[in-house]
Amino acid sequence: MVDVSGFRNGMAMLTGAVNVVTTDGPGGLAGFTATAVCSVTDQPPTLLVCLNQSSRVHDAFAANRVLCVNPLSAGQQVLSEVFSDRNLTAEERFARADWSPLRTGSPALAGSLVNFDCRISDIHSVGTHSVLYCEVVEVRINGTAEGAAAGLVYFNRAYHQLSEHSRALR
Amino acid sequence: MVDVSGFRNGMAMLTGAVNVVTTDGPGGLAGFTATAVCSVTDQPPTLLVCLNQSSRVHDAFAANRVLCVNPLSAGQQVLSEVFSDRNLTAEERFARADWSPLRTGSPALAGSLVNFDCRISDIHSVGTHSVLYCEVVEVRINGTAEGAAAGLVYFNRAYHQLSEHSRALR
Repeated sequence: MVDVSGFRNGMAMLTGAVNVVTTDGPGGLAGFTATAVCSVTDQPPTLLVCLNQSSRVHDAFAANRVLCVNPLSAGQQVLSEVFSDRNLTAEERFARADWSPLRTGSPALAGSLVNFDCRISDIHSVGTHSVLYCEVVEVRINGTAEGAAAGLVYFNRAYHQLSEHSRALR
Repeated sequence: MVDVSGFRNGMAMLTGAVNVVTTDGPGGLAGFTATAVCSVTDQPPTLLVCLNQSSRVHDAFAANRVLCVNPLSAGQQVLSEVFSDRNLTAEERFARADWSPLRTGSPALAGSLVNFDCRISDIHSVGTHSVLYCEVVEVRINGTAEGAAAGLVYFNRAYHQLSEHSRALR
């Protein structure tokens, strides 16, 4: 098997959208920054989120069984940092942006590209992580002031912005 | 639950790295274009790939139990199209690039950002799709002629290129 540093160096080359994933309910308010999010199937509409079992937010997600995935827009890099800052409480993290719950009550971020409001349908343990399978109950697509969406991604250990300027030419 | 078109329109806003995923072995040579790939854990080094069970390549992956994930570099957009073109056979697809197997025998693409050579450790069925959990046995990181890596991603139904030009400024 490959060693951990080789794996991490390789994974740095796999671009990931930068998302803030949130929950609220009996298990408490919580949120974290995640790039390990992907679409699974549209029958039924399902995505997955990977979460370290040692993260202090893990139990809130497992207890609430709901979450909202908020892919950040290009101007929201500071929220990526806020939601991965171990020195901030949940309340301090959420105070840095505006939220409006959709159907499940999980905080949906204003100004993100889209909000995926989900119920967790299954949790699969893989090594140190939980894979949260999530059925999507509501989707809200947010416009921007300019009308054209611009996304925030992480690649090669740096943030990048996707917009008309990064679009590939044939 | 959200309807399929709402889910797809939302998912168009979730950026994905563009990968060609390959296999070879008793089940035959096969490859397809995938954006639903993500890191799971580094203990043990594991990634996952989502694959439609109705895809004609599905059974080759399930039989071979090995695969190679090849995240495309910015200049390899044509390979994304070749490996999603239903009119091409496996042989016709693979003839369009250079390959060199690593440990598992799965074709590793020359000039991609990195090659993740993997054994499939578990297959989880979710609706129409299989989630292939893969332990990474070898990683090869490829340099570019310019020395700086440039990646290919799909966002808002278009290809985008990541390079120094797309890097976010603070």
